[in-house]
Amino acid sequence: MARRIDFYFDFSSPYAYFAALEINVLGKKHDCEVRWHPILLGAVFKTTGAKPLLQMPLKGAYAQHDLERTARMKGLPFCLPASVPFVSLAASRLFYWIAEEQDVALAQSFARNVFKAGYQMGMDISAPVVISDIAVALGVSRDQVEEALTSPVVKTRLREEVTAAEEQGVFGSPFFLVEGEAFWGYDRLQMLDDWLSRGGW
Amino acid sequence: MARRIDFYFDFSSPYAYFAALEINVLGKKHDCEVRWHPILLGAVFKTTGAKPLLQMPLKGAYAQHDLERTARMKGLPFCLPASVPFVSLAASRLFYWIAEEQDVALAQSFARNVFKAGYQMGMDISAPVVISDIAVALGVSRDQVEEALTSPVVKTRLREEVTAAEEQGVFGSPFFLVEGEAFWGYDRLQMLDDWLSRGGW
Repeated sequence: MARRIDFYFDFSSPYAYFAALEINVLGKKHDCEVRWHPILLGAVFKTTGAKPLLQMPLKGAYAQHDLERTARMKGLPFCLPASVPFVSLAASRLFYWIAEEQDVALAQSFARNVFKAGYQMGMDISAPVVISDIAVALGVSRDQVEEALTSPVVKTRLREEVTAAEEQGVFGSPFFLVEGEAFWGYDRLQMLDDWLSRGGW
Repeated sequence: MARRIDFYFDFSSPYAYFAALEINVLGKKHDCEVRWHPILLGAVFKTTGAKPLLQMPLKGAYAQHDLERTARMKGLPFCLPASVPFVSLAASRLFYWIAEEQDVALAQSFARNVFKAGYQMGMDISAPVVISDIAVALGVSRDQVEEALTSPVVKTRLREEVTAAEEQGVFGSPFFLVEGEAFWGYDRLQMLDDWLSRGGW
């Protein structure tokens, strides 16, 4: 049976932007399904005492510089979304609505476009109107977007996903789980690659 | 002129153990001098609000597991020193005394042996008696060790090193600086390697 990579991320996490553009390539290389799980890290940050990275003394300045050089290394554009930090409620809800009601691949395309709008174009991806436009451009109707953003079913689904992630020990973004093995951080993709190649060690 | 890698670490940092066994190989590969700077991270942790990694909710358990699999990946032994977390005052002072009064290469050998005693053998490397034995085995006399651990000159040197590191923006361990470019974490050695190969990017 094919293995699976569970990919947990918060749209407000800049390193998740890089991971989102790479993870499916890694999955394909190892014949793994990649299951995407947008989550909100606010609650788990309260548990760990963590703060948004870019707001931290010393580490914030380092991270800003590191994000820019990582982008140069990868040959990708990079900027920060218009409002940082932010709660990525609208994008996360819409993701699950699209995945549930339409198509998982479309939901992943939507998520990548949200990341690009934020981290390549500097758009305010906390704003429901921005998120809506991205979904509409992919063929979701305005009415469906409205439903997705307000539906109690979708709210519940997102809440359940966050709880499930916490129960799996997810405490950061991006975060990857393969058969119970956890990898935290964009800079661990290489270790994850090696782990999948060798079947662990 | 040859480039230089400044290698900052706290003996109480498990990931620094792995870095300490590799960094001079990387330096040699790129014809870089590697300058070792043991520091105490307590003060800077107060600034950033960081806590000792292994004590953190969720992250602590992840780190423990990650340290063990990193050791397996590298084919190295790994355990935790007898008392964790600890203040690495004795080892740091002795390092600077040996570097100043005897020989820089000997001080680095001493530092590697301290790491091995702690992270391979589980010895209590916070204890001055353990640290003293390691230095004596390298040819430092008991009297000299006593002097090193109590000398006001050495105390001042360590304090100055910690202050200088903070001024350079060092906030974690292991931490590397190359011509002002900062790399934080053992898992960034590969990026540092690439940076040195390409002369930045």
